[in-house]
Amino acid sequence: MIIDKLIDKIKETGNPTVVGLDPRVDYIPTFIIDEKYEKYGHSLKAVAEAMYEFNKYIIDEIYDLIPAVKPQIAMYERYGIEGMKAYLDTIEYAKEKGLIIIGDIKRSDIASTAEAYSDGHIGRTIVKENSFDVFKQDFITLNPYLGSDSIIPFLEDCKKYEKGLFILAKTSNPNSGEIQDLLVDGKPLYEKIGSLIDKWGSELVGNNGYSEVGAVVGATHKEQAKCLREIMPKSFFLVPGYGAQGGKAEDLAVCFDKNGLGAIINSSRGIIANHIKENMNGKDFAKASRQAVIDMKEDLRRCI
Amino acid sequence: MIIDKLIDKIKETGNPTVVGLDPRVDYIPTFIIDEKYEKYGHSLKAVAEAMYEFNKYIIDEIYDLIPAVKPQIAMYERYGIEGMKAYLDTIEYAKEKGLIIIGDIKRSDIASTAEAYSDGHIGRTIVKENSFDVFKQDFITLNPYLGSDSIIPFLEDCKKYEKGLFILAKTSNPNSGEIQDLLVDGKPLYEKIGSLIDKWGSELVGNNGYSEVGAVVGATHKEQAKCLREIMPKSFFLVPGYGAQGGKAEDLAVCFDKNGLGAIINSSRGIIANHIKENMNGKDFAKASRQAVIDMKEDLRRCI
Repeated sequence: MIIDKLIDKIKETGNPTVVGLDPRVDYIPTFIIDEKYEKYGHSLKAVAEAMYEFNKYIIDEIYDLIPAVKPQIAMYERYGIEGMKAYLDTIEYAKEKGLIIIGDIKRSDIASTAEAYSDGHIGRTIVKENSFDVFKQDFITLNPYLGSDSIIPFLEDCKKYEKGLFILAKTSNPNSGEIQDLLVDGKPLYEKIGSLIDKWGSELVGNNGYSEVGAVVGATHKEQAKCLREIMPKSFFLVPGYGAQGGKAEDLAVCFDKNGLGAIINSSRGIIANHIKENMNGKDFAKASRQAVIDMKEDLRRCI
Repeated sequence: MIIDKLIDKIKETGNPTVVGLDPRVDYIPTFIIDEKYEKYGHSLKAVAEAMYEFNKYIIDEIYDLIPAVKPQIAMYERYGIEGMKAYLDTIEYAKEKGLIIIGDIKRSDIASTAEAYSDGHIGRTIVKENSFDVFKQDFITLNPYLGSDSIIPFLEDCKKYEKGLFILAKTSNPNSGEIQDLLVDGKPLYEKIGSLIDKWGSELVGNNGYSEVGAVVGATHKEQAKCLREIMPKSFFLVPGYGAQGGKAEDLAVCFDKNGLGAIINSSRGIIANHIKENMNGKDFAKASRQAVIDMKEDLRRCI
């Protein structure tokens, strides 16, 4: 099961970190982007190709230190068809390097439409005798607002193809409480969603006691994460918000179980844009990302 | 403003209908799909090109009768990069025919990521001196679960580029109540979301009294739609669920104001797959769609 593979990779690397591959044009060193501008003009294709090239440099420097990467599809969708191609190319390259892919797509729709998303992202798209693994992700993120029938098609593909989900429970953004903290029967909505996520994943529990269906739980809300960890014992947590968004390692301990498992912490900007902070813009720029991964690992180990 | 353009087109056609361009491979007549299989093999590209061709036949037959089309991006994403190209080609073709485009994308993410989605879908993606209207939609649908800061980047692009939104309040699927009907301070969550949507749109009200920020309100919930119509007087409704999903015209009257405005009703399968029901699989198959649009218009007029 993919959740067991993720846990094995976390143990192997000793590092519960996922690196968010969310490139922005101003992160990309000039030696990469200028070459693409020269070749393709100031076009969507130029930036998309530069993003892919940029990601490859980063992946080459960090793939041995981490279990997984999390490309954020919005950053690629912004550049249209060419951007989507860079998204897929990035996934394929990272997979070749042995990394697990968490596609941060946050999709949601009614069942018949959810089926289409599931086919394209974690299932298979069938064309006559051919079966295509289209966007090739191992895990994807989903939004739960539409309820169970919007999630079920994905659960079926998780079973069939050994894939996994991380469903939004409590997000890391400043206004997340506006809806997610509303009280339902005296308890915040995110707890209700947390219980639903735990239920959705109940038939997909792997050897390590965790389900293929995990939850997104923001690192910016310590007390809430603690409470969710208690009511969702079988749900692995994908935790955004560390570093640039303000989440601190000492607040993250609550996301882990007594064996130091149960969560994977995301960092994007703090890793992939570290060369800017370090003033390293030459061909070895990604060594700054490697250092940032090592520093983050130590930071987490201090606390977990 | 785009909401006024939509209302003008509804008045001009006398038809508050939007046609969901959600093609499935089994909707596509063999004379289209077989030619593509011959040309491109049993590939994603073959189906994607057939979907675009299929959409063109439908659009050609109905563009003069309706104000807008609503392509569901999941149906295209299922076919990967080639599918996304068919999505964009469909939008461009429908725009050439004067139709307003509601991109059914239901995206949602934290602010910095929402910006990227907004750039790609309703705003502009900037590359040096160039500014690209990437996916070229007029309206898009959004999921509100992350709260205000996840919506604000889209509001800014609505202002800047005269675009609009339809944000999920109460969806049409059977399990929508599981989360959306939960009671918050004695009222269902969807009412709370409805009030937020009305607030988000308060600075974007057009000449007809409706805002660029509308709401998705399922046709399968009459009493709930009635209540939302009252608490969201400035929000135009995008109403899915008519026809194949079980929503009936007589239940839809509550979505409209006393001038017969205030909502646009979606039908997908009932229009674009009507040729199957009518056993019309020749080159004139889309005439069945034309008839379905005319029948739906009459059905709605009876009740509104």
